Amino acid sequence: MTGIDDLPIRDELRGKTPYGAPQLDVPVRLNTNENPYPLPEPLVRRIAERVTEAARTLNRYPDRDAVELRTGLADYLSRTCGHRVTAPQVWAANGSNEVIQQLLQAFGGPGRTAIGFEPSYSMHALISRGTGTGWISGPRSEDFTIDTGAAVAAIAEHRPDVVFITSPNNPTGTAVDADTVLALHEAAQAAKPSLVVVDEAYGEFSHRPSLLPLIEGRPHLVVSRTMSKAFGAAGLRLGYLAADPAVVDAVQLVRLPYHLSAVTQATALAALEHTDTLLGYVDQLKAERDRLVTELRALGCEVTDSDANFVQFGRFEDSHRAWQRLLEQGVLVRDNGVPGRLRVTAGTPEENDAFLDAVRVLMKQSA
Amino acid sequence: MTGIDDLPIRDELRGKTPYGAPQLDVPVRLNTNENPYPLPEPLVRRIAERVTEAARTLNRYPDRDAVELRTGLADYLSRTCGHRVTAPQVWAANGSNEVIQQLLQAFGGPGRTAIGFEPSYSMHALISRGTGTGWISGPRSEDFTIDTGAAVAAIAEHRPDVVFITSPNNPTGTAVDADTVLALHEAAQAAKPSLVVVDEAYGEFSHRPSLLPLIEGRPHLVVSRTMSKAFGAAGLRLGYLAADPAVVDAVQLVRLPYHLSAVTQATALAALEHTDTLLGYVDQLKAERDRLVTELRALGCEVTDSDANFVQFGRFEDSHRAWQRLLEQGVLVRDNGVPGRLRVTAGTPEENDAFLDAVRVLMKQSA
Repeated sequence: MTGIDDLPIRDELRGKTPYGAPQLDVPVRLNTNENPYPLPEPLVRRIAERVTEAARTLNRYPDRDAVELRTGLADYLSRTCGHRVTAPQVWAANGSNEVIQQLLQAFGGPGRTAIGFEPSYSMHALISRGTGTGWISGPRSEDFTIDTGAAVAAIAEHRPDVVFITSPNNPTGTAVDADTVLALHEAAQAAKPSLVVVDEAYGEFSHRPSLLPLIEGRPHLVVSRTMSKAFGAAGLRLGYLAADPAVVDAVQLVRLPYHLSAVTQATALAALEHTDTLLGYVDQLKAERDRLVTELRALGCEVTDSDANFVQFGRFEDSHRAWQRLLEQGVLVRDNGVPGRLRVTAGTPEENDAFLDAVRVLMKQSA
Repeated sequence: MTGIDDLPIRDELRGKTPYGAPQLDVPVRLNTNENPYPLPEPLVRRIAERVTEAARTLNRYPDRDAVELRTGLADYLSRTCGHRVTAPQVWAANGSNEVIQQLLQAFGGPGRTAIGFEPSYSMHALISRGTGTGWISGPRSEDFTIDTGAAVAAIAEHRPDVVFITSPNNPTGTAVDADTVLALHEAAQAAKPSLVVVDEAYGEFSHRPSLLPLIEGRPHLVVSRTMSKAFGAAGLRLGYLAADPAVVDAVQLVRLPYHLSAVTQATALAALEHTDTLLGYVDQLKAERDRLVTELRALGCEVTDSDANFVQFGRFEDSHRAWQRLLEQGVLVRDNGVPGRLRVTAGTPEENDAFLDAVRVLMKQSA
């Protein structure tokens, strides 16, 4: 039988395994930061209507520039982020991963580097490697916030072409304040200049306002977003960015033509019609997230401040064993490799109760 | 105002424009090889049903490995290509462009090269550049077939890591015989060894059988396909490949996780249920394609043998002027940059009549 090593693949891929959380069939799955609330039935019906309409011309290529969708996303951002943006400032792709891949193809790539402050969203490093961009692991404080001085120094030293700032940060949970972003942006411009990508995949869950207004007058600053979390549409794979129109022009030089299918565009447009209902679920999840933080602390856990739909908790001597013990009780959380910590997604009240019960048992075992 | 040149984009992108045919609003659009037949209404309804079902769990990530869809595609290939394949031999992505991008990320990339025999599908070269893969323009005969001796010599000389063979070739239209593919594959293995990608995007329209059976016992040979053309689903963006399971394992090292949305998987599965109806349209299009070849020759055009849903015709002293003159008569065809030639997509009988009428006028003007 032929194995991967018998193929002429790139050397750096040898011995690697595909990215992805283990998908196990257990009663309570709180491991991939999915929104626990299914789309409301009126939205499901609207998706069916919109997709039916799109299917009638499915023999034709989709709108290559996704103008209607980008207009809808621009309206949504303008309404919710305290800053008006228009369609030429917005770009959409198959998940924020593809947005990031396109940004790295245009602004990173062979002979160039990107920096992120780790632990952070691990796909930033993986997509950098996938696009031939050198990866620099920048520092983070003991409490998982960005130490501005240390981060500025790292940028000055390494002069990266792309700087990733994840706010709220994944897997640790805390949002970044505007002053920190501005300091890193200034350092990045002084060093190179480079592109600064603020990844706000979990932005809607934050206690802080969006960092979107910072793009004004800063053509090298990009904010990326997704419909996977706040819109409860992880299955849709719709990510987007807002930036200067020149950045949108630049990614169009590297995007695959017709990358966004007509059914994806139709489904996303239907979801945008139901924004208010979906943001109501976000409010519920924020309340549950705050409850998780409070109750985990009451149980004696060390908990990182969370602005996201998930909570990082610990500290465990052996976090993998703790993960396993929760799993034995039917609760799947995520071991992101942060020493002594685990990450739990805010689920429904019932799922969170089951999780907290499991932690209670775990803490007794550890005591 | 900020322009692309004010951004820190990669040097090789400066001055470039996005890929894509001009999309003009004219009565007869025969420029992008779309299938002119809308999906039948029962299939549209089935898509709505399948997507409704998928939308009910859209808050969850899609099946990362798209197992049901890959099984359906494997069954389709087994039934129609004279060779049995199974799901582990099949991989799917957002259009065959993304399939090709993933293959190049795994088997091409910085420090490696790919070869194609031009004129051919221009995205092979563009995606090579987009993935940092050096591009080698291989030779083609005067009659647009592959000259096996010259092609083998080019492979021996350049020792590429990836070899593209487009059959039927786009934009010229002729399929490649198995002996040629085997000769090129042998040369590629002797030279490096390298991956040989047979792009059968238009395979269902060919007079020749599929080259799929050649993957048997050849783990470095890949056949790529699409639902855009024969399935009448350009708007769906569903491309796929068949190869040794090890190749499928290899692309999973570079694919973005959850790249294929739940709505895309649902829509493609619905289309596979209606394969027989859709292949009936293919038969109609093949008859129309043959009629275009015959009538264009009768009008005095030089026509390249076509196994696709399009026909290359000429010869014009100034092909761009000829393109313009057809456009003035409301018929949009494609100027692919092949000197003296244009490409017309086989449309409905009425569209083809309108096109042939316009060519009649054009030939009189030229005479």
